[in-house]
Amino acid sequence: MYRNFSVVPRVMFGRGCFNQLDDVLAERRGNTHSFVVFILDEIFKGKALEGRVPQHEGDLLVHVSVVDEPKTTQIDMLVEQINSYSPVLPDAVVGIGGGSTMDIAKAVSLMLTNPGSSADYQGWDLIKNPAVYKIGIPTLSGTGAEVSRTAILTGPDKKLGINSDYTLYDQMMLDPELIKDVPKEQWFYTGMDCYIHNIESLHGTHLNAFSKAYGEKSIDLCRQVFLEDHHDRDDKLMMASLFGGMSIAYSQVGACHALSYGLSFVLGTHHGLGCCITFDYLEEIYPEGVAEFRKMMQRHDISLPRQLTRGLSDAQMDTMVKVALNLEPLWENCFGKQWRDIMTYEKTMKLFQKM
Amino acid sequence: MYRNFSVVPRVMFGRGCFNQLDDVLAERRGNTHSFVVFILDEIFKGKALEGRVPQHEGDLLVHVSVVDEPKTTQIDMLVEQINSYSPVLPDAVVGIGGGSTMDIAKAVSLMLTNPGSSADYQGWDLIKNPAVYKIGIPTLSGTGAEVSRTAILTGPDKKLGINSDYTLYDQMMLDPELIKDVPKEQWFYTGMDCYIHNIESLHGTHLNAFSKAYGEKSIDLCRQVFLEDHHDRDDKLMMASLFGGMSIAYSQVGACHALSYGLSFVLGTHHGLGCCITFDYLEEIYPEGVAEFRKMMQRHDISLPRQLTRGLSDAQMDTMVKVALNLEPLWENCFGKQWRDIMTYEKTMKLFQKM
Repeated sequence: MYRNFSVVPRVMFGRGCFNQLDDVLAERRGNTHSFVVFILDEIFKGKALEGRVPQHEGDLLVHVSVVDEPKTTQIDMLVEQINSYSPVLPDAVVGIGGGSTMDIAKAVSLMLTNPGSSADYQGWDLIKNPAVYKIGIPTLSGTGAEVSRTAILTGPDKKLGINSDYTLYDQMMLDPELIKDVPKEQWFYTGMDCYIHNIESLHGTHLNAFSKAYGEKSIDLCRQVFLEDHHDRDDKLMMASLFGGMSIAYSQVGACHALSYGLSFVLGTHHGLGCCITFDYLEEIYPEGVAEFRKMMQRHDISLPRQLTRGLSDAQMDTMVKVALNLEPLWENCFGKQWRDIMTYEKTMKLFQKM
Repeated sequence: MYRNFSVVPRVMFGRGCFNQLDDVLAERRGNTHSFVVFILDEIFKGKALEGRVPQHEGDLLVHVSVVDEPKTTQIDMLVEQINSYSPVLPDAVVGIGGGSTMDIAKAVSLMLTNPGSSADYQGWDLIKNPAVYKIGIPTLSGTGAEVSRTAILTGPDKKLGINSDYTLYDQMMLDPELIKDVPKEQWFYTGMDCYIHNIESLHGTHLNAFSKAYGEKSIDLCRQVFLEDHHDRDDKLMMASLFGGMSIAYSQVGACHALSYGLSFVLGTHHGLGCCITFDYLEEIYPEGVAEFRKMMQRHDISLPRQLTRGLSDAQMDTMVKVALNLEPLWENCFGKQWRDIMTYEKTMKLFQKM
């Protein structure tokens, strides 16, 4: 049985296309009492981009902190805030920011139409009702969150996405100008999220020609961005992120993502950084990928934090291992059905102890 | 202003995925009086594939001849046939065949919900009402028709597509097994349609990083298919076709497609073959592309028909030139806004006289 893969049905790509957001929303706006919710990374508070958000009277602009990875409690509070702002549903939810903001906006628009807490929906295909119409506008590239069918959240007892076809954006607007001012470290870590997930996808046991075509071109673009000099590197990175996300269609991420989830769950490490820290210890599984990744680090003068797990309690280490090993589809993609024989509790613990 | 590009929202890819068509349709089937229309290339009449069509009681299976390129009169007759078959609209229209069949099924599902003749809608964004839900299942790869927003038809006075967002399929099912028995010439000509339109797109003045990423990977796959040996060449060609189609998002085809439209309009030459015949005379515009194309021809022992326009009347030659030059966006993509200074009536005529 093949997956029937859902794709974000409308895409706008181009330098400055953010300026067309008002036109895109115009098709969605209802009567005079209706409104749009803009979810903006608080880093843009008072910045030029905030001034360019096409806010109409009655619209709600919410700043979100992404200092921590998105939490189910944060989603539930945002939904409550919107529900108490208006008795009617918004015409649209627009997410503007990096991967965390992308995921927050997705989760919020889902939870506006699905009862209960977002923690109830962490898993696969648990969502019952279509979300409020939503637009994703990334200001950081690499996560693939703009195109994925998941919204990754840290809940009371796990870090796991709300995976469903309803999670997908209805529209994405990819404006390479929006990523030009990202600080170097963040640019690198997030870009590496994309590079690493291509390595994992192409190395995976689920791979077919669809995922391979997207993954190979995404890696090619990552190489151009991180190992060469191109005047349009922002455009290329945006496409790399999109293609990397599409590559997941008939594949999966693998060992690095699984381990980084464990790390992030216990330490709160941001996803891109967590992937980089973890990947650096996975030479045995992905020898060529890790070698090239180190070249990229060197070229951009990146040094990774070390000894992060030193001083953690046994209970914390145990949780880290368990959260990582809980991601069965990722391990299966990496090692096949017999993955448990290879990636034992002890082996996983040893890897984390090195980090 | 950037185009807000619509994408086929659901994709299934994989060897044998045709077997899942019944499941996909199950989600769409209404009450007991409802029905599905299957539009099947008549080449499959009595063949194994026809036996695999998941026909339920009351469904309508129509064989279509694609000996000639699709005509507006053919579409209008099919719509009449479906309307007299049932007073209610079908739940779905499923097109199974090559590019012509893909376009016929698209046009039929549009014309079931839009009044008048299909000839009234040849052009850009003239369709007013959403089409009947439609599924495209290609059995030939290269045209990109499975993913394009056009249904190219020969009408009373022009060969021109019904271009609209409503023209897009709602679902495509890409099963590489379906293209394995295509006769060599047809396989080659249709594959070259893809190769050529990538050359045109990448050479175009409208190009951006989005279209470039898709076009480059599509060409890479075409090279693997036509210049190398791969066990999964059918899978690769299917992906090349899809990516070639996506590359058109922010680009356009160019000189070769424009000229081949003129040729087809007057002589009825099939699109893939028409593109090959024309491309062979465009060394001046696409020198590297034409050189590589000839290598591909040689490798597959293809010889093109010659002297096709010999013996045509002045009026026929005049029509051929006018139909070709009428495709302004294609010429503009090729040569920029000043294209009329380069591609004069006389120059176009001389090219056709050589063919």
